[in-house]
Amino acid sequence: MKKIINQVDHMVDEMCQGMVKAHPNQIQYFAQYKVITRQEMKQNQVALISGGGSGHEPAHAGYVGYGMLDAAVCGDIFASPSSIQIYHAINQVATDQGVLLIVKNYSGDCMNFDTAAEMAEDDGINVKAVYVNDDIAVKDSLYTIGRRGVAGTVLVEKIAGASAERGDQLEEVYRLAQKTVDHVKSIGFALNSCTVPAKGTPTFELGDNEIEFGVGIHGEPGIERRTMQSAKALANDMLDQLVAELSLVTGDEVIVLINGLGGTPLHELYILSNEVHHYLNHLGVKIEDTIVGNYMTSIDMAGASISLLKTDEEIKTLYNFPVKTIALNK
Amino acid sequence: MKKIINQVDHMVDEMCQGMVKAHPNQIQYFAQYKVITRQEMKQNQVALISGGGSGHEPAHAGYVGYGMLDAAVCGDIFASPSSIQIYHAINQVATDQGVLLIVKNYSGDCMNFDTAAEMAEDDGINVKAVYVNDDIAVKDSLYTIGRRGVAGTVLVEKIAGASAERGDQLEEVYRLAQKTVDHVKSIGFALNSCTVPAKGTPTFELGDNEIEFGVGIHGEPGIERRTMQSAKALANDMLDQLVAELSLVTGDEVIVLINGLGGTPLHELYILSNEVHHYLNHLGVKIEDTIVGNYMTSIDMAGASISLLKTDEEIKTLYNFPVKTIALNK
Repeated sequence: MKKIINQVDHMVDEMCQGMVKAHPNQIQYFAQYKVITRQEMKQNQVALISGGGSGHEPAHAGYVGYGMLDAAVCGDIFASPSSIQIYHAINQVATDQGVLLIVKNYSGDCMNFDTAAEMAEDDGINVKAVYVNDDIAVKDSLYTIGRRGVAGTVLVEKIAGASAERGDQLEEVYRLAQKTVDHVKSIGFALNSCTVPAKGTPTFELGDNEIEFGVGIHGEPGIERRTMQSAKALANDMLDQLVAELSLVTGDEVIVLINGLGGTPLHELYILSNEVHHYLNHLGVKIEDTIVGNYMTSIDMAGASISLLKTDEEIKTLYNFPVKTIALNK
Repeated sequence: MKKIINQVDHMVDEMCQGMVKAHPNQIQYFAQYKVITRQEMKQNQVALISGGGSGHEPAHAGYVGYGMLDAAVCGDIFASPSSIQIYHAINQVATDQGVLLIVKNYSGDCMNFDTAAEMAEDDGINVKAVYVNDDIAVKDSLYTIGRRGVAGTVLVEKIAGASAERGDQLEEVYRLAQKTVDHVKSIGFALNSCTVPAKGTPTFELGDNEIEFGVGIHGEPGIERRTMQSAKALANDMLDQLVAELSLVTGDEVIVLINGLGGTPLHELYILSNEVHHYLNHLGVKIEDTIVGNYMTSIDMAGASISLLKTDEEIKTLYNFPVKTIALNK
């Protein structure tokens, strides 16, 4: 294993320190609980918190800022932050308007975020949570009951973040976050495995011409191993499944997120995006906007995912609300 | 070789198509000459053009927009665009105020950009050029006489772009671009090789615990093969050389670019950035700003480079000028 690190045990802390030193006007870092918050805390709006295992950067610390999150809680690589970490984050950013937790649907994350929410409610803080489960590849998986939360989480954070920033009440921010969860679906594939630093070897092995179709963002198994295909064939297969899941028909509108898993060159993502546009144009589905890049990664995995968010006027208005974070700016 | 492409011969064109479809309000694509320009062309300011071989995305098409480039000319993977392509780009964006070409110092690029400039000058267009040679690793290399142009090019485009956007005359934009070239220095290392699609196998081989120190962005040999080191040791060695080259002393100010070569996770770049801050803080060098991410890549190469731009009030003012491009927003 070759990685640009010092010690495996220190890498999440050193990453957070590196982030806050690079962006001192935007974020601050509470090292004891590995919590990153905005530099300027909100006063009278709903506060939004996400987090989870590290290794998915820029998720979630890269989305802390105006129009998105108020705090990100950083667990170890691919391990949920503890309930104590999350409880600390809630205390750090909570306002009288309450707190919304945006949780990717993994059993460990759900348990720890729920425990932290109960602790904070005992303190009189109003807390609600949504559980993102956008990955349509498999139901029940390693670490998960139900469907996994993957790149669609970024869009949930964007929409809910806009709702909170414009001053919506907690019930309304929650409703819009849950509506986004209900309308965003994703599926991905891996060309090779990630290497978790603490393990030091690839999580799984793929043949020279083999891919894992439907892979999870921790290297969990997907739908099947299959022979490598063209960008067009991959896009078409993924979109057949996404379109069916969202019941998309001519005249519908979507936001597209073409997400790299960490080790994929940007030009390959744009080639995939080109095929997604071909497919959706042919179907008569309007594309409101397209985001292309590394937004929810799996360490150094080569591969990509496609997320579609079915939009309406309400979601589009929030999507087009300004956002100023490290990783997403509009 | 597993890559998300259709045919190797079509990948640059399909990438450009994917880019313009994803960002239709920002850029347009002239397919015949593989030129990407702003959606809204400048009228009365100096126009800036860069380009080169593809495979370095988001360079350079990702830097087309307000406050940076007016056009990017896309060659094949790791191959200079032809003089005809560049000549077409000049004609597409030239104004009465003239055109500045920002060329990475590779023999093929220099020859083709110079030929295109002569052709355009025959048409009565005022053209000047700067040649970026920020890579301090080696003098003379594969493809290059003198030093190579690498990630520092992005900062040259940022500073010159701001100068052009605020309405400086060509001589002044040229002076500031050349000043930036003179004040930006870079060095990088590879943990593994890139794989050029047309070749289909890695350009070079490294052992399980071996790196190429001083590598070029096309996989050209660097200073030496060495055993993998910690992030701190790598940063310190690179900074010793950069600081000596720029004669940095306590009280000087720099802008830092921590650049991923394509296959490196963002958290590793922030760990490297953290070490760069440690080193420069200890030296008493002030860091005006830090950019961390994939800005000048080498296809799927794992590794990183550090660029330092020594600043003064003139450069800082231009650096802080607004920029609205696909890959850089301030």
